[in-house]
Amino acid sequence: MLNLIFEREIIMLLGSIEAGGTKFVCSIGNEEFNITEEITIPTTTPEETFNQAIEFFKKHDISALSISTFGPIEQNKQNKLYGYILDTPKNKWKYVDFVSPFLKTLEIPVSFNTDVNGSAYGEYITYKSHKQSIDSLVYLTVGTGVGGGCVINGNIMKNFSHSEMGHMLIKKHEEDLNFSGICPFHNDCLEGLTSGPSIEKRLNIKGEYVSNTHSIWNIIAYYIAQSLYNITLILRPDKLVIGGGVSNESLLEKTRIYFQKICNDYIQYPDLKDYISVPINKNNSSATIGNFALAYELIHN
Amino acid sequence: MLNLIFEREIIMLLGSIEAGGTKFVCSIGNEEFNITEEITIPTTTPEETFNQAIEFFKKHDISALSISTFGPIEQNKQNKLYGYILDTPKNKWKYVDFVSPFLKTLEIPVSFNTDVNGSAYGEYITYKSHKQSIDSLVYLTVGTGVGGGCVINGNIMKNFSHSEMGHMLIKKHEEDLNFSGICPFHNDCLEGLTSGPSIEKRLNIKGEYVSNTHSIWNIIAYYIAQSLYNITLILRPDKLVIGGGVSNESLLEKTRIYFQKICNDYIQYPDLKDYISVPINKNNSSATIGNFALAYELIHN
Repeated sequence: MLNLIFEREIIMLLGSIEAGGTKFVCSIGNEEFNITEEITIPTTTPEETFNQAIEFFKKHDISALSISTFGPIEQNKQNKLYGYILDTPKNKWKYVDFVSPFLKTLEIPVSFNTDVNGSAYGEYITYKSHKQSIDSLVYLTVGTGVGGGCVINGNIMKNFSHSEMGHMLIKKHEEDLNFSGICPFHNDCLEGLTSGPSIEKRLNIKGEYVSNTHSIWNIIAYYIAQSLYNITLILRPDKLVIGGGVSNESLLEKTRIYFQKICNDYIQYPDLKDYISVPINKNNSSATIGNFALAYELIHN
Repeated sequence: MLNLIFEREIIMLLGSIEAGGTKFVCSIGNEEFNITEEITIPTTTPEETFNQAIEFFKKHDISALSISTFGPIEQNKQNKLYGYILDTPKNKWKYVDFVSPFLKTLEIPVSFNTDVNGSAYGEYITYKSHKQSIDSLVYLTVGTGVGGGCVINGNIMKNFSHSEMGHMLIKKHEEDLNFSGICPFHNDCLEGLTSGPSIEKRLNIKGEYVSNTHSIWNIIAYYIAQSLYNITLILRPDKLVIGGGVSNESLLEKTRIYFQKICNDYIQYPDLKDYISVPINKNNSSATIGNFALAYELIHN
């Protein structure tokens, strides 16, 4: 009997959904936040995709679920639209109640955050587990889109709404003055100038096929450095993590040099190589780890 | 006897120092945060200025003191330089211990913050006392310098260090391309483009003598709007307060129009007239009110 109880506690399982525009990654994790099972579901209609995810989670006896999703979302529990995707350009997902279908069918606690806030929390938790003294962290993703999440005092930052720092305005690089940017809302905001599609628009080839030595990367690094500088001035976080398809160590090395040059000794920041880095969680697992931690906290806090 | 105790409680007094580069404003306040006495001391040497301030506070039986000062400062109590002014351009004030002289002579609890964080807290507390539902607020001052303070979840934001948002990088206005800015560190950062001295540098007259209808105000409003947009994207605060000598209702009306245009319906924000406003505390009293509240909390929390 004691053994059975012990075994039951050991195998408490946690659920994670990382919801993107093209796919849902649904994962099961243990209390050490290791992934024990994972499936990928194409993002079609809410009904179809939710049903497939629910079917997967029903096969596993998870105790709590955490969702990290594309936005914008309503995360304020006092608001009647809490748990909804809001005014997204993905038409079928506009004003869709994301939380209730899982709450009703799985009957377990559910946490609901943006994808980048999930990733920020995953990075924060992993650094904490490595005994690093850290209370605040920003996770910036530069890929098909650009977005940022933020942990402050050990919690995901939730003020009037969630961060949308991917659309920040910055100075143009002098070799990029003729490029007007591709953001449908702001033209040459950070996303309009640094996203994967903006690189493809300039060069007519996908960013992943552009050599590391191409001059475009100086331009991209300059823009990312400016955004990290502005984020630093406003938030003064302990750490900046740059993820997403466009980010890699070679680009970040260029970014650090611009960052230092822009700061011009005006402010102090942690050791630069530690301060600006690629994700510590490999294989895009930051949001999943973050979800496991958030699901765990639903039960234990 | 009972009457004496009652009277003693009523007259508990709070001390405030608002320390600027040219003057120290030292104030005594009651528990309703009303100023009962105030003196202004010229900022000369730390020893001379501190001694005059201490002499003033010694005449009043204050129970706690709060200091809001020009920076940069060390506000982290774990750091051995806690309570110091750090690497300021004001040579006599470089690496000066600000807190200890008051702590040792007055023997009361002392709170230590930047001027703009004191102002942010004063605005936040006043809105709260008016029963406004508000948890986060940014106070931006645009005057001789530009700086910002921030309240998050009801507390002054203190991460790796305090905000320095006055030096943010933004896009140039197309009618201002020939002006290279006046910031000695970053040339055309927000402060380099919008501070009082930057207006004087462009027009050869002081900003206070420039008519409200002059086209320079469109340029200044465009820059402030961009900075408020970036702050909004990153922090999503409940309120943005713009103080300082350059700020007034006419400039903020222009700023709101640019802000709305830049956002282009991409994000939601509170009602614009409430969201972007001049300080609710008149006569530059925001930092003093903030200090009284912070001093009060030293005793009551």
